[in-house]
Amino acid sequence: MRRAVALAARGAGETSPNPVVGCVILNAAGEPVGEGYHQRAGGPHAEIHALRAAGEHARGGTALVTLEPCDHTGRTGPCSRALIDAGIARVRYAVADPHAAAAGGAATLAAAGVDVAGGLLAAEAAEVNRAWLTSVRHGRPFVRWKFAATLDGRTAAADGSSRWITSPAARADVHRLRAAADAVVVGSGTARADDPHLAARLPDPAASGSAVRQPLRVVLDTGATAVKPGARVLDGAAPTLIAVAEDAGTAHLAGRTGDGTVSVVRLPRAPGGQGLSVPALLEALYARDVRSVLLEGGARLAGSFVAAGAVDEVTAYLAPALLGAGPAALAGGGIGTIAEALRLEVTAVDRIGPDLRITAAVPGPPPAIRTPSVTAPDAPEEN
Amino acid sequence: MRRAVALAARGAGETSPNPVVGCVILNAAGEPVGEGYHQRAGGPHAEIHALRAAGEHARGGTALVTLEPCDHTGRTGPCSRALIDAGIARVRYAVADPHAAAAGGAATLAAAGVDVAGGLLAAEAAEVNRAWLTSVRHGRPFVRWKFAATLDGRTAAADGSSRWITSPAARADVHRLRAAADAVVVGSGTARADDPHLAARLPDPAASGSAVRQPLRVVLDTGATAVKPGARVLDGAAPTLIAVAEDAGTAHLAGRTGDGTVSVVRLPRAPGGQGLSVPALLEALYARDVRSVLLEGGARLAGSFVAAGAVDEVTAYLAPALLGAGPAALAGGGIGTIAEALRLEVTAVDRIGPDLRITAAVPGPPPAIRTPSVTAPDAPEEN
Repeated sequence: MRRAVALAARGAGETSPNPVVGCVILNAAGEPVGEGYHQRAGGPHAEIHALRAAGEHARGGTALVTLEPCDHTGRTGPCSRALIDAGIARVRYAVADPHAAAAGGAATLAAAGVDVAGGLLAAEAAEVNRAWLTSVRHGRPFVRWKFAATLDGRTAAADGSSRWITSPAARADVHRLRAAADAVVVGSGTARADDPHLAARLPDPAASGSAVRQPLRVVLDTGATAVKPGARVLDGAAPTLIAVAEDAGTAHLAGRTGDGTVSVVRLPRAPGGQGLSVPALLEALYARDVRSVLLEGGARLAGSFVAAGAVDEVTAYLAPALLGAGPAALAGGGIGTIAEALRLEVTAVDRIGPDLRITAAVPGPPPAIRTPSVTAPDAPEEN
Repeated sequence: MRRAVALAARGAGETSPNPVVGCVILNAAGEPVGEGYHQRAGGPHAEIHALRAAGEHARGGTALVTLEPCDHTGRTGPCSRALIDAGIARVRYAVADPHAAAAGGAATLAAAGVDVAGGLLAAEAAEVNRAWLTSVRHGRPFVRWKFAATLDGRTAAADGSSRWITSPAARADVHRLRAAADAVVVGSGTARADDPHLAARLPDPAASGSAVRQPLRVVLDTGATAVKPGARVLDGAAPTLIAVAEDAGTAHLAGRTGDGTVSVVRLPRAPGGQGLSVPALLEALYARDVRSVLLEGGARLAGSFVAAGAVDEVTAYLAPALLGAGPAALAGGGIGTIAEALRLEVTAVDRIGPDLRITAAVPGPPPAIRTPSVTAPDAPEEN
């Protein structure tokens, strides 16, 4: 199963809106005879890759899968059926499929006489699918808030200058986060001040350039005044979504939306506040198959996400520098007293050049939802 | 020499205003026959301890010392003479004594025919004496600024509440920093708001309580209005120094200074600004044999130290929490634009309970000053 988790991780950033999944097939003697992982949405599931590699050796064998095999026919057929047809005798999976409300693939397998059980290495397997599982659980994209600041929490100096707080290595690392996210979100202040491009540029464009999966670039431009014709997000290098208020005038963007790379969505304003409704934005993104968001700025937008309970993970790039004045990384958020602080757990600390990258996540159980209980499918239903 | 550096480190926090020093004696065959370290100011130097342990085995042998042997008679005799008298044939030291302007112990040893050279493991040896070397180089105490903040750089919530930002483990760790410093410094705002005690409390008072070396508690109370009769710093648990402006009225403190644990120093005000002159304060502390200062708060006082170029190291306790509002860790400091940021180097990152302890220091060469050049004492002098 550890091998299956490693296989699953290979699909990271490529499978959305699907989860990453890895699978290893053992023959009846317990020897590995096939493996595979889900490589991209619309392509074969991990089980199918692994069964193809195993061929006839799968008969009477075991399938080790990081996620409960699917039981529905989407763009591909159900994996539960494929495993049964291949003569698999035992299935061990790590994490239950949170989509399956009552009877998932495990129940179908058990009903067909397959010895099936879940929970093996569940924590590790949940971790590689953290964003996807969080997104399914909440019915909105997983949100990672990224910021860069000095050790004393400033994102710019007193005069507004901020180039650069962090090192080239840290800034390059941000492109890795962008490439791993389905969407990158900034507010109108950032759009106006920085005219950011927001596409992912990875170190070796010659080798991997055309293969880089670009995130959807999202600008929250409530009044439709920040993204001007000629803005860098309109350059077609990646798709762009401009979120505006229901009453905003967008005539100046009309010429840009024709080529299919730029679209506009109208959202309700935040109740009583400035800006757009964060839940409405997340709902609109989820409907567009966005399962993970990298929230890049600015401080007030991040505050509105915090206030909406919509920050799942924080990646802080801290430069070992002091400024003593200048804007803070986070503003607003609706926290008035220490007891209301949003408490996180540090999950990783890394040195990126001279800087530190601190990753912290909302604590809680791993986002697997259903406790596997499918080994007795014939048990009487509870009231 | 690595052993000698480890021995030196055992004296940390106990030898001020002296450096920490370790020494290993090898006999003529190169076998270790004695070792020692400087245990406390006024006690024997490391070389003396090591020579006593080696006895007659030192004759014809080698002394490995982390700091150039002293050449002067203070509370103890010169170590250069003791090494010569013991018949030591070779001396290898790590760091040159920055006190010795022209001819230090190395020159005396060389003149007596001892084979002497410096620079061995100099960086490691300088590191264990970082505070002392910095203090000698600048002629003021080494200053470590400590703060505790959330990941977004807040030291309290919007309503001023701050108990607690960091965990009990992090707060306990601060007492370790206090015990290692010669003095702990706070400003009047902190004194007024928190009535801090500032003494070092270590985990096991039953075992080590009476042996804890207490730092000098220093309150910058410009107007002499923050430290009131009954303040916790006046309790006699450690010596206390109250720094006030030259024109401040201190009649209310008169009754407290009689028992010898509380004293008052009058200092000039900072030119043009509020508060006292930081250089004058550091000069007054240096004159009182303070070689290392732990600067604890608040934000504005830390800013005045930054502005005075008097922060050598920063220890930041960061809680993985977000507040989005509230005071920042550092205020003022005279930095107006990004190019003027005080750039540091991260020297350590540690997890303390759920929190992070980030140590960052002013970059630069190790604070050893003199390049050893004493192996040819008979060379003609340069013009």
